[in-house]
Amino acid sequence: MAFEKLDLDPLFAKIEELKPQFIDRLARAVAIPSVSGDELLRPRVVDMAHFLVSELENLGAHDIQLKDLGTQPPPVADASLQLPPIVLARFGADKSKKTVLVYGHYDVQPALKEDGWATEPFTMHHDEAAQILYGRGTTDDKGPVMGWLNVVEAHNALGLELPVNLVCCFEGMEESGSLGLDGLIAQEAQQYFLSVDTVCISDNYWLGTTKPVLTYGLRGCNYYQIAIKGPGADLHSGIFGGVIAEPMVDLVQVMAKLVDNKGKILIPGVDEMVAPLTEKEDALYDDIDFSVDELHAAAGSETGLYNNKKDILKHRWRYPSLSIHGVEGAFYGPGAKTVIPSRVVGKFSIRTVPDIDSAKLDKLVIEYVQKVFGELSSQNQLNVELIHDGAYWVSDPFNESFTAASKATEHVWNIKPDFTREGGSIPITLTFEQELKTQVLLLPMGRGDDGAHSINEKLNVSNYINGCKTLGGYLHYYGRQ
Amino acid sequence: MAFEKLDLDPLFAKIEELKPQFIDRLARAVAIPSVSGDELLRPRVVDMAHFLVSELENLGAHDIQLKDLGTQPPPVADASLQLPPIVLARFGADKSKKTVLVYGHYDVQPALKEDGWATEPFTMHHDEAAQILYGRGTTDDKGPVMGWLNVVEAHNALGLELPVNLVCCFEGMEESGSLGLDGLIAQEAQQYFLSVDTVCISDNYWLGTTKPVLTYGLRGCNYYQIAIKGPGADLHSGIFGGVIAEPMVDLVQVMAKLVDNKGKILIPGVDEMVAPLTEKEDALYDDIDFSVDELHAAAGSETGLYNNKKDILKHRWRYPSLSIHGVEGAFYGPGAKTVIPSRVVGKFSIRTVPDIDSAKLDKLVIEYVQKVFGELSSQNQLNVELIHDGAYWVSDPFNESFTAASKATEHVWNIKPDFTREGGSIPITLTFEQELKTQVLLLPMGRGDDGAHSINEKLNVSNYINGCKTLGGYLHYYGRQ
Repeated sequence: MAFEKLDLDPLFAKIEELKPQFIDRLARAVAIPSVSGDELLRPRVVDMAHFLVSELENLGAHDIQLKDLGTQPPPVADASLQLPPIVLARFGADKSKKTVLVYGHYDVQPALKEDGWATEPFTMHHDEAAQILYGRGTTDDKGPVMGWLNVVEAHNALGLELPVNLVCCFEGMEESGSLGLDGLIAQEAQQYFLSVDTVCISDNYWLGTTKPVLTYGLRGCNYYQIAIKGPGADLHSGIFGGVIAEPMVDLVQVMAKLVDNKGKILIPGVDEMVAPLTEKEDALYDDIDFSVDELHAAAGSETGLYNNKKDILKHRWRYPSLSIHGVEGAFYGPGAKTVIPSRVVGKFSIRTVPDIDSAKLDKLVIEYVQKVFGELSSQNQLNVELIHDGAYWVSDPFNESFTAASKATEHVWNIKPDFTREGGSIPITLTFEQELKTQVLLLPMGRGDDGAHSINEKLNVSNYINGCKTLGGYLHYYGRQ
Repeated sequence: MAFEKLDLDPLFAKIEELKPQFIDRLARAVAIPSVSGDELLRPRVVDMAHFLVSELENLGAHDIQLKDLGTQPPPVADASLQLPPIVLARFGADKSKKTVLVYGHYDVQPALKEDGWATEPFTMHHDEAAQILYGRGTTDDKGPVMGWLNVVEAHNALGLELPVNLVCCFEGMEESGSLGLDGLIAQEAQQYFLSVDTVCISDNYWLGTTKPVLTYGLRGCNYYQIAIKGPGADLHSGIFGGVIAEPMVDLVQVMAKLVDNKGKILIPGVDEMVAPLTEKEDALYDDIDFSVDELHAAAGSETGLYNNKKDILKHRWRYPSLSIHGVEGAFYGPGAKTVIPSRVVGKFSIRTVPDIDSAKLDKLVIEYVQKVFGELSSQNQLNVELIHDGAYWVSDPFNESFTAASKATEHVWNIKPDFTREGGSIPITLTFEQELKTQVLLLPMGRGDDGAHSINEKLNVSNYINGCKTLGGYLHYYGRQ
């Protein structure tokens, strides 16, 4: 290795020794269905916050706080719905040490066995033969959050001081727009987070399945819904078919004008805001360890829009995309139901990149949808709105935090990580950078095929355990600088 | 009245007296969630068959048979799924009397409280003030099925013989294409149904809310699904948005080409098969008691495609329509989920009318969808198929069965019924007519605003009780001829 290696053997040995306990901790976390997008499961999201408090207390954290974020703003079914709290905690308060804020989220995406999971999504399944942990949240993001707790536990077991002061910030609304977190960070910037030197976020994935990466860029995400309302209640298509204006027919017409099936966004003005590709940036994509086959493996199909590495990476990292996620209010079950839905809500989102202006994008999208709907001359009522947004982010991959993470990664995995960007959105990255005026590092634990947001979400045991070593190693390399 | 009135006062008085028991019978039927479209609820559909057997036994029926229809053909999740049985029973075997086959169905549409019901759909709610019975199946079709049982009970209580031999045929798959019933009717035409003189089906609704009708025509329904499959599993739109061909985007493009939002079917060749409108037929619509306001009241909105009675009735009764019902496999919940669904199934149906050839329609639809999808040059896989179909039907409204029903209706309601057609489909009407070579009568019990297939399905108590009188009166007027 081209750098001075620290002696992390005792720490890494202890992490190996504690593997069964660490797997058990993750299983207990997965067992709590903390789905932030499902109002009915909100109490379980809160349960998950209390689980974290209990673990943090047992590990000796101090100044543990549950930050109340108040009620959730509309659209919500329950107007008095409370946001889940943000969990804050500290380990160490040594002024001679640097202070690292570690962020993760304890909420998860929805999951139902009926969606096609091979095992119960909220009962972690340890495939002993393949050494894989299956369950909702294993990789996104309960694995990494447990990873930080595991690093502390390993130090405690060794009687070893942490090399830095650690500030934990774990939120429960990441999968639903991180509502309330921006405000909390702004509010605590000069309070709880006053002494923070850098921020480390472990909430993304390797590009492929074999080589670790550090991530210095993210796309943003603006999520919209198109609600179209007609009849007062769902109607029988035998009685009303042909005589009533069907909201679902309007919606399909509007959604068909959002994006073509080659990925081209049809909303005028969006592509024009994208930063031009320079020769220098174009060259960067040459060296990334990635192949079309890896895309196929991760997608489980050979239905990609591009057949070469560079185009795939560019369209994942530096170009916007528009995805249509589904329809609320229409028939969604198997079989045949002869219903005319009275109110349907189409869901779509646009992944944003430099230099798209988020407010300008919203204006373009909303006015375009209104224009397309207007051209239908429908008697139905349209309401198009932004549900949530998160900005894109790009950082300097050669700052001291990235350098420390690069050393730790190479120490654990015996290979230099690739420096990558991500197609996904972690809006809070930018907020931390701006509010705390610090560097932010994205240090992923899982692999590109982990299936975050999908059925059969998983985390390989090697990624979990080596991930713990990498997180711990990062603190040591960063703390020494 | 312009006809000789029978003395039905004792029967009608007994029906009034037994009202509490009749309402209780319907409540017990509604309590069984016999949703034929939900494979997981299939055991409850079978429970409902056994409930009928028990009631029939108590009323003194003989020759009760549960006809096994074997396994349900694909597409099904459970390849060994058994169809619910058809319940056959007889009251009376007097060769000097005519024999009336009464048909109804004991299965219902899906219903969940969360769909927006004011009360639990499978707990019948008797609104005493409004005298309305709310619950899934109250009007479609448990109310009418209980109606036939109630007519027998009233005769039994009076020690009065039924004026005809009654043959009951109650099926459990009507809401899911009446699978197996065609075969059963053909098989029993010369067996169980050998002596049947006429068939009476009570499974539709008044046109409006105040005037009873008899129905002599029905549209058919061909129900299709468009399945588009891409990735091996649902994917995260951050990671895969812009680099993978999204099945949902393909589906929206295809569905947008099925029908325009003024109701025009865009599939070439369909409208060309529709029987031309003659002047004589056009004039028939002049006298029907119906108004645009009634459409608005039933739909709960003023979003109709036509602003005059005749166009509304024609487009409900004698023109085809195409409705888009929903999408299986996409995100359908509230809130935001950043998923790229791996396989989506669009559901739509076409209401058919004379002289549309069903097989030719299927060919036109399937080839058109394949052509439109082909023009997208998508890497995803398309599978378009007919899920089920039922033919349209038109009868002679002046035959002896309709005449008897007209007298009974006028006797009970003191007004001549309108002779109407229906937009909805009762495919089995045609099968009975063809296989048994008899007349078929449609004698509705509920009102046009009952909300069959919708939330808050209801049956007015007056329609239930006067409906029982009308069914009973029909047997007497028909039996006397």
